[in-house]
Amino acid sequence: MKFLFEILKIESISGDEGQLAEFILRSIKQRKTSWKVIPEIYSGENFHNCILLKFGNPRTAVFAHMDTVGFMARYNNQLIPVGGPEIVADSVLEGRDSLGEITCKLHGEQDEIFHDFPRGIDPGTRLSYAQNIRLDEEFIQAAYLDNRLGIYNAMKLCETITDGWVVFTTYEEHGGGCMPFILKFIQETSPIKQALISDITWVTEGVQFHEGVVISIRDKFIPRKKFLDKIINLAKESGIPFQLEVEEHGGSDGREVQFSPYAIDWCFIGAAEENVHTPNEKVSLADLQSMLAIYPYLVERL
Amino acid sequence: MKFLFEILKIESISGDEGQLAEFILRSIKQRKTSWKVIPEIYSGENFHNCILLKFGNPRTAVFAHMDTVGFMARYNNQLIPVGGPEIVADSVLEGRDSLGEITCKLHGEQDEIFHDFPRGIDPGTRLSYAQNIRLDEEFIQAAYLDNRLGIYNAMKLCETITDGWVVFTTYEEHGGGCMPFILKFIQETSPIKQALISDITWVTEGVQFHEGVVISIRDKFIPRKKFLDKIINLAKESGIPFQLEVEEHGGSDGREVQFSPYAIDWCFIGAAEENVHTPNEKVSLADLQSMLAIYPYLVERL
Amino acid sequence: MKFLFEILKIESISGDEGQLAEFILRSIKQRKTSWKVIPEIYSGENFHNCILLKFGNPRTAVFAHMDTVGFMARYNNQLIPVGGPEIVADSVLEGRDSLGEITCKLHGEQDEIFHDFPRGIDPGTRLSYAQNIRLDEEFIQAAYLDNRLGIYNAMKLCETITDGWVVFTTYEEHGGGCMPFILKFIQETSPIKQALISDITWVTEGVQFHEGVVISIRDKFIPRKKFLDKIINLAKESGIPFQLEVEEHGGSDGREVQFSPYAIDWCFIGAAEENVHTPNEKVSLADLQSMLAIYPYLVERL
Repeated sequence: MKFLFEILKIESISGDEGQLAEFILRSIKQRKTSWKVIPEIYSGENFHNCILLKFGNPRTAVFAHMDTVGFMARYNNQLIPVGGPEIVADSVLEGRDSLGEITCKLHGEQDEIFHDFPRGIDPGTRLSYAQNIRLDEEFIQAAYLDNRLGIYNAMKLCETITDGWVVFTTYEEHGGGCMPFILKFIQETSPIKQALISDITWVTEGVQFHEGVVISIRDKFIPRKKFLDKIINLAKESGIPFQLEVEEHGGSDGREVQFSPYAIDWCFIGAAEENVHTPNEKVSLADLQSMLAIYPYLVERL
Repeated sequence: MKFLFEILKIESISGDEGQLAEFILRSIKQRKTSWKVIPEIYSGENFHNCILLKFGNPRTAVFAHMDTVGFMARYNNQLIPVGGPEIVADSVLEGRDSLGEITCKLHGEQDEIFHDFPRGIDPGTRLSYAQNIRLDEEFIQAAYLDNRLGIYNAMKLCETITDGWVVFTTYEEHGGGCMPFILKFIQETSPIKQALISDITWVTEGVQFHEGVVISIRDKFIPRKKFLDKIINLAKESGIPFQLEVEEHGGSDGREVQFSPYAIDWCFIGAAEENVHTPNEKVSLADLQSMLAIYPYLVERL
Repeated sequence: MKFLFEILKIESISGDEGQLAEFILRSIKQRKTSWKVIPEIYSGENFHNCILLKFGNPRTAVFAHMDTVGFMARYNNQLIPVGGPEIVADSVLEGRDSLGEITCKLHGEQDEIFHDFPRGIDPGTRLSYAQNIRLDEEFIQAAYLDNRLGIYNAMKLCETITDGWVVFTTYEEHGGGCMPFILKFIQETSPIKQALISDITWVTEGVQFHEGVVISIRDKFIPRKKFLDKIINLAKESGIPFQLEVEEHGGSDGREVQFSPYAIDWCFIGAAEENVHTPNEKVSLADLQSMLAIYPYLVERL
């Protein structure tokens, strides 16, 4: 889990994913010769900060977003959210501006958020949750498990995948925006019919810790039933623990697959967490294991 | 109206339109030899559950959505909406899950909806309004007139249309998602400049029963005035009864034409109903006649 | 400023931009021979009412929207908004319908707006704020400075630009809809990597009159930090007065660049106004000067 710990420590609030993207790209280049298939790599300015890996002859693409929620300094001591962070008073925030390093605390409520840094912060400065990784035998707890675990899962998949796209995306927490050009590139380069969203979801009254990876039947948007049925049948065959989610709200990179000008089926599959979008996101290690196990199984058979 | 009665009895909640699509496709194949022009048919997995018919040299496309609102089982005895159904207590719902057929009643209010089925229902199971078609000399009343009447209208149009696309779409009630790939296919196959939305709208203080088919000047979105003027002038010439609608809210497949990467004008034209998105949608037969009459007139002249 | 005064007097509520587009097109044709580079002009039905000018070999496009907010007659004496006009009681509205010219006053509040015209107005009729231009040594005040000043700025840019697209768009105030087909045309004709949005923003506690043109770090959506940093550095070098904006809400044609299927960076740059979307929009002439100065500087160097 060295790679996971490393990426948990790199800030990449939506719109500023450059540093994390560089780290992931470097890791890909170091590791790829040990992978079953060496992928073609697409990255750089033409892809903004996204990274696309093409393995063999893809039928399916796996998407993991690199960005996180956070805060942006407005005027005076005001903060405004990037994405949808929970406003938990006294959360420790970190960042830097033209005058140097910043560590401060969050105050206020939804729609009126402030920091307590003794000086003003340059408008537009991004602030992340201070990282604090806690690991025991059952759980991992940290800021930004959403979606560092999804990235970790995608990187593990790279070790064994023979055919498929693995894609690291930006902006997911703040309305999206990279998926349209990524999907266009994929469909014009080596097109797919299916997409899996490697991301983290919520513990609810129907989704519990230690019950397995979550296959999402719906969030705000609804994948096509025919594709869901296919995935659920494969999951049953696999013997890997999984649970089904049915939610009215929430979204993911799957939303932009749904609204793209391509007939691509999609499904969100990932572990569930408590304390979503706080510094204390918490995931069951057993559920993470199921997530790591089900992706290679599905990508091979879909 | 045999075809109308048949399609009124087939469930096809957004995301699960397969059964209705198959029935429509079968009807098309049976009927097409009696039509003035035999269309090219595009359907199957590459189009998910959508069906596209190309007649002659199209200038205009007509879109009718096949999906309906409904409910989805969540956990315990909870339901969540698909699309925007009205929550009318004691409405009878039907569906089936792994344990068999389901008939139950709806309880609760917006944001807290329940069923009274004596056992749990598999999460993700779709439930439709029980169908009850009522026909007298003035009105038809049933669940899902929105948009079975729009489909019926599109099928009647097929009998006489010489040039144009007739398209049966999915997902309209739940945010859309098929229109982008359909429009791309149309524009790359036999492009159009104009789109008509064959769908059902609302009776309001300005739109009354028996006053004719509704030409919508706007809903939440606004078609280009130049195109509206052209349609309204043709409608006046036709002598077919029509009324104009001006609404602040609501949407249709027209929304996705507006936001597509093609310069295509669009307009919503259809009969108005009472009891929208309930089991008791009610439409004037005279208004339906106007709808059936105006489509061939417009498609020929636009 | 003759051109500015002329376009301030032409009505063009979203969806009905034809008259203004014709005037701008006529002006372009009259002036282009005096410009440093004579552009290729794309307009007409294939572009609905939009106008695209291609100068030299573009790297950047500048977008200025032609439409304005306003009102539409519904039934009886009801009005509904087009875009997001402020509801200021007694504002004078103007328009025309099948029975002739209309001048009336606005009454009511958000969600219940009325006019006091002594007769009914044809449903669907558009009503604009009566124009009243006020100019002194420090300020210009009028209806629809948003976005007549953005258009004025784009036209001034045409005089000296050597490489770039200058584009006049529609529908921006009412959710957009032309940008997707414009961006597709640009990318297939002479593609760009960068977009500047020539539009007017808001005076707030952090953005003041006379402090220079506003470079927006974010509104509801967030441009990529790397591109913002480049622009801000160039702005510093230029010596042109500018201020930075950080807002949680609001949107522009930049939104549709963000969600387009092209990897194009974007940034909103324009003067700030008070009394947004009222008949009394007010802009500092010094800020307008900074706006006029920064566009040629940036477009040449980006």
